[in-house]
Amino acid sequence: MVASAFLPELWTEILIPVCAVVGIAFSLFQWFIVSRVRVSASDQGASSSSSGGAKNGYGDSLIEEEEGVNDQSVVAKCAEIQTAISEGATSFLFTEYRYVGVFMVIFAAIIFVFLGSVEGFSTENKPCTYDETKTCKPALATAAFSTIAFVLGAVTSVLSGFLGMKIATYANARTTLEARKGVGKAFIVAFRSGAVMGFLLAASGLLVLYVTINVFKIYYGDDWEGLFEAITGYGLGGSSMALFGRVGGGIYTKAADVGADLVGKIERNIPEDDPRNPAVIADNVGDNVGDIAGMGSDLFGSYAEASCAALVVASISSFGINHDFTAMCYPLLVSSMGILVCLITTLFATDFFEIKAVKEIEPALKNQLIISTVIMTVGIAVVSYVGLPTSFTIFNFGTQKVVQNWQLFLCVCVGLWAGLIIGFVTEYYTSNAYSPVQDVADSCRTGAATNVIFGLALGYKSVIIPIFAIAVSIFVSFSFAAMYGVAVAALGMLSTIATGLAIDAYGPISDNAGGIAEMAGMSHRIRERTDALDAAGNTTAAIGKGFAIGSAALVSLALFGAFVSRAGVHTVDVLTPKVIIGLLVGAMLPYWFSAMTMKSVGSAALKMVEEVRRQFNTIPGLMEGTAKPDYATCVKISTDASIKEMIPPGCLVMLTPLIVGFFFGVETLSGVLAGSLVSGVQIAISASNTGGAWDNAKKYIEAGVSEHAKSLGPKGSEPHKAAVIGDTIGDPLKDTSGPSLNILIKLMAVESLVFAPFFATHGGILFKYL
Amino acid sequence: MVASAFLPELWTEILIPVCAVVGIAFSLFQWFIVSRVRVSASDQGASSSSSGGAKNGYGDSLIEEEEGVNDQSVVAKCAEIQTAISEGATSFLFTEYRYVGVFMVIFAAIIFVFLGSVEGFSTENKPCTYDETKTCKPALATAAFSTIAFVLGAVTSVLSGFLGMKIATYANARTTLEARKGVGKAFIVAFRSGAVMGFLLAASGLLVLYVTINVFKIYYGDDWEGLFEAITGYGLGGSSMALFGRVGGGIYTKAADVGADLVGKIERNIPEDDPRNPAVIADNVGDNVGDIAGMGSDLFGSYAEASCAALVVASISSFGINHDFTAMCYPLLVSSMGILVCLITTLFATDFFEIKAVKEIEPALKNQLIISTVIMTVGIAVVSYVGLPTSFTIFNFGTQKVVQNWQLFLCVCVGLWAGLIIGFVTEYYTSNAYSPVQDVADSCRTGAATNVIFGLALGYKSVIIPIFAIAVSIFVSFSFAAMYGVAVAALGMLSTIATGLAIDAYGPISDNAGGIAEMAGMSHRIRERTDALDAAGNTTAAIGKGFAIGSAALVSLALFGAFVSRAGVHTVDVLTPKVIIGLLVGAMLPYWFSAMTMKSVGSAALKMVEEVRRQFNTIPGLMEGTAKPDYATCVKISTDASIKEMIPPGCLVMLTPLIVGFFFGVETLSGVLAGSLVSGVQIAISASNTGGAWDNAKKYIEAGVSEHAKSLGPKGSEPHKAAVIGDTIGDPLKDTSGPSLNILIKLMAVESLVFAPFFATHGGILFKYL
Repeated sequence: MVASAFLPELWTEILIPVCAVVGIAFSLFQWFIVSRVRVSASDQGASSSSSGGAKNGYGDSLIEEEEGVNDQSVVAKCAEIQTAISEGATSFLFTEYRYVGVFMVIFAAIIFVFLGSVEGFSTENKPCTYDETKTCKPALATAAFSTIAFVLGAVTSVLSGFLGMKIATYANARTTLEARKGVGKAFIVAFRSGAVMGFLLAASGLLVLYVTINVFKIYYGDDWEGLFEAITGYGLGGSSMALFGRVGGGIYTKAADVGADLVGKIERNIPEDDPRNPAVIADNVGDNVGDIAGMGSDLFGSYAEASCAALVVASISSFGINHDFTAMCYPLLVSSMGILVCLITTLFATDFFEIKAVKEIEPALKNQLIISTVIMTVGIAVVSYVGLPTSFTIFNFGTQKVVQNWQLFLCVCVGLWAGLIIGFVTEYYTSNAYSPVQDVADSCRTGAATNVIFGLALGYKSVIIPIFAIAVSIFVSFSFAAMYGVAVAALGMLSTIATGLAIDAYGPISDNAGGIAEMAGMSHRIRERTDALDAAGNTTAAIGKGFAIGSAALVSLALFGAFVSRAGVHTVDVLTPKVIIGLLVGAMLPYWFSAMTMKSVGSAALKMVEEVRRQFNTIPGLMEGTAKPDYATCVKISTDASIKEMIPPGCLVMLTPLIVGFFFGVETLSGVLAGSLVSGVQIAISASNTGGAWDNAKKYIEAGVSEHAKSLGPKGSEPHKAAVIGDTIGDPLKDTSGPSLNILIKLMAVESLVFAPFFATHGGILFKYL
Repeated sequence: MVASAFLPELWTEILIPVCAVVGIAFSLFQWFIVSRVRVSASDQGASSSSSGGAKNGYGDSLIEEEEGVNDQSVVAKCAEIQTAISEGATSFLFTEYRYVGVFMVIFAAIIFVFLGSVEGFSTENKPCTYDETKTCKPALATAAFSTIAFVLGAVTSVLSGFLGMKIATYANARTTLEARKGVGKAFIVAFRSGAVMGFLLAASGLLVLYVTINVFKIYYGDDWEGLFEAITGYGLGGSSMALFGRVGGGIYTKAADVGADLVGKIERNIPEDDPRNPAVIADNVGDNVGDIAGMGSDLFGSYAEASCAALVVASISSFGINHDFTAMCYPLLVSSMGILVCLITTLFATDFFEIKAVKEIEPALKNQLIISTVIMTVGIAVVSYVGLPTSFTIFNFGTQKVVQNWQLFLCVCVGLWAGLIIGFVTEYYTSNAYSPVQDVADSCRTGAATNVIFGLALGYKSVIIPIFAIAVSIFVSFSFAAMYGVAVAALGMLSTIATGLAIDAYGPISDNAGGIAEMAGMSHRIRERTDALDAAGNTTAAIGKGFAIGSAALVSLALFGAFVSRAGVHTVDVLTPKVIIGLLVGAMLPYWFSAMTMKSVGSAALKMVEEVRRQFNTIPGLMEGTAKPDYATCVKISTDASIKEMIPPGCLVMLTPLIVGFFFGVETLSGVLAGSLVSGVQIAISASNTGGAWDNAKKYIEAGVSEHAKSLGPKGSEPHKAAVIGDTIGDPLKDTSGPSLNILIKLMAVESLVFAPFFATHGGILFKYL
């Protein structure tokens, strides 16, 4: 294989699905290992067979003798809580999907009608746009296949989110139970469960896309232009579900979290996750529907869109015109290689090394990023060498640009490494091991106001290096290979998605594990162990968001480029009134969107606060722990609020491209896309990091590890109260509005791309008739 | 005059300076009236001769009988405090100007050397760029005259700020003393003083610019291209001083304000402006150096830049080529008309009607905006009819575009009316008479966190309509008359600057008047009257900031257009790597800048808090009022912090265009300018409005006028404490980082314009040699 310069088409046809299946098998294998931790009371401890003798050398104070391992009542309690969380999450997701399903049907119809109308629903073949000597399928076929691809993307996205949630709620109690044996064991369970989700998503996303291409090819035959145009519907489907997942889940989780904290921690002075708090189940459900299901759908969406953007540009480049299937599948080959690389990387965390102390957790997670990036660099080199001709041409807004295979290798690499840089910068600004968060914690000395001022300033500052990293990636990849370069750079950043998702999902799983420990009334030491896991998880969650945002920036630029190519626009000149007003209004959209989502969280939290207060005031014996709170009402408040409130921001994002494209035309729409991209990235990064920093500043004061931290604490001190206020403000920023903005910019771009032929034909009616 | 279709050149030469002189005379007359309120103890009450009998019909509870009018000790006390504030402000401004002076000399040298190097310091005449049959002056001459214009602009800007501060500190104690006679009289004094500043700035800005043009014309003769190129230095000078004024003053005022509030109001529970608070003098000085001097320099800068942008584009249009001086001076004629219109408008507030009740204050100020806009619409029609040929051509990035005079009339009008819309929207979102601020106040019920979440959401939401208003103005003016249209739209928005500044300066004067009343130990009722004046002032300050931001957006776009024309760029295509990375990095700059300025305020406030706490703890008898605090140390802390901290953000703004232009070239610089424009406008509007809303939410709870407000209060209640935290967070947002961003976007644009020939010749070396 290495001897031949080009991978034969047959090998490509075999290798991609094989890699995807390997990924799924690996995911199932991890799931099998996790499943050996039993939460039913009967056969507890079965998992210790393989690692029973590993108690040597634990040097950390938190890791001591196993305790309460045989306390069957605790196991039963954990099982019960786990079931409650899992049922709450399942029930919410089903409610959400019912509403989203209605939207999906309507939007599928819109796609079919709008795209079908491009040639007036003609069923005649037509000459191809980019090669007029050939015959291409009618617009009606593209409309039909785009609609199918949209539905497939939407369903895969929904499944990704749902399965992720299922795995997370399956793993949380198991992590709690393993924490009785030590922090190392608990870490492994949480991380393996994250890996189940990571590999399942990455592999199934690839497999579905690959199968879809091959099935569509049966109809399209040689018309690759039409084939890959239709495939873009897959990206749109994935991303539009991600929008509702992120926004709905984000409002759900933060309404519950903010509501629980405001009454429980601030007014009643009871600890986080205390079972007396009526909103505590809703809070834990929220972690799974927002941070897990939402994040899963989001990154799946990015991956699907980056692949579609690369494929659609490639289809009108020399690959597509010469029908070089292996080269055409280069984006999929990179993703396939990514699955193998991540598989090896995972072994470093689960098998090659063992976590023995709390302070090893963060480095272990960080090493995952470094190891995967280094190995992937080699992997990309291999794929670029065997999967690409040494020289080829790329479509560049009306002209063809000659590109060498090593240049494309650099494009993918620059994206990959930019991701690592963004990850590290995010870690620096959100981990309480470094001075930025410590400064924010210190500012709590003078109250909540200075805490907020310092936190906002930190978030703004944290934008600088990621933006330069993204700018350099864009410049290099764009200069080498136009929009195709940008698309593969995005794929490079997302190529280690399995590892990224694994460490990202690890966070909410640990968070939930802590919640279950508290609710099950487990000992203080168990809670300390899960807290240590969770603190590392906060940082990795921020890193995950950094990745999601960085890749979203590259993806949406690539989609923007594909849209412009497909809409037949050759320049997007800022010096024209149509474009500049688009730019200005586009830059405003993230603010509009954030205003909606933050206000939604605020209003829902107010309702939650009223309800929690009501229960504390009216249920006798609740504070004393003799009566049980009414969890279900709080779950209902979060559910109702998020379903109701996700619709307006959802409409804003979904309708804007349609309205702008239809009334103002493709130039203004181009401006809107570019404006929302350059403005949205900044708000998304700063909001995520500000929120992460506030959360960890609070944890820094609570943990009280250093002299400085001790001088600010303990829990309940004035600085700690100020830190809690900051943390609460950060919740909607980091978990609702911030991460939804990725989707805003990606989704508007992919939607424009899908509807590009419609806008090019029927768009801009306002200017036509004025 | 009306009979002739075109105003003869001689009339133009006479009319412009006459209007400017009328403006200055009116300003002096207002000053004379204010001066009749005596603050020396000897002849108190002399001002009551003209309006002594106007006590009839005061229907408001706050306006009662005159009280303490003859208490000479109060007058002496006020005089003493006024002197302390005035001296503090003068001393700070002199310190600031010393540092800024050094910068001015260095930067003047840079301008001369860089622009002189364009033709290698040749003293030979050369063919003109836009009309090669004519001979133009050498680049060295442009370098020299640009440098002179820069210095003139800088000096005028500094003088504007300084005189504004002088007038404000002259008026504050007089307002306090008049408040003893009733709220109506106090309002008139504060408003007249604002008018002094407004007219002085508008008229002297116009006069200096006009004289400079005429003097330069002696050398340049027929070379109008070179003449108006050199004039752009005036805008750069004005704006660079404004930057330091805004940033330095903003840090000064907010460090003092935040520091004073955090200890005084939150920890010690003493009222605002209590003389026992050691930071109280620094706080009052800050209002004058930040809100007055900074704002004055800022709007002067906008005005100078809008004029320069319009003139430089006109000089290469048919006006310039045909040497039609009247048409060339159209921007100045609009400003001249603006002075006359504002003069009439002012009489509505001071002479035609009389304020009789507190609730009439806000409508009176709002009516000023409406009246000036309506009359100015007629004024613009007149100027457009007599001052322009019926048809002419405008330079449009390489082509000439035919424009009718009525189209240009519409361009100016659309800017003027967009300003009014922005003003009203700002009022809606920041005045506590409407639901948005009341909702924010209501969210204080559940604590500071929800207050902050709601406040941020409000700020984001308040961006929507202003951005649409700006977008429509740009679209209309750009479509009709390219960048010249945008420039005159900006001038339209600024044409009522005298009125805008008057109502804007009214705010800090009233704020200071309240501070003096408190410090002089005047009765509770006097304080209530000044508080009522101040509450209206908060809203007008927000409106003023809205104007400043809106006009800055239009101005910087016009300057951007002029820069592009002058640098010989014909398209700024987003679909090129150079432009898109510029756009992305440009959109990041406002965040970087805000991070710097907010962190500066935070750090300086922390120092102030330590000092104020130290004084309360170590000076015996301070809390009891028997010992005097050490005001001077607090003044010094604010001064040192602001001088030290204004340098890094100043360098960021001043160096970015030079570095980007020199290393990356004009395309990337164009991207940076467009990016910072579209992103900066949003942050500036949302920051200003969020801050204003928090301030007025707090005032809403304190005033307790409605049932709803009473349920949240009184002062010292938990919701009120939460509101104070929001107010404190809003301080740096609304008075430091937010309003400085206008200057960031304008200044980078005008600097690029001035250095355009240099960048076009020597710029982009990184790409040249790579």
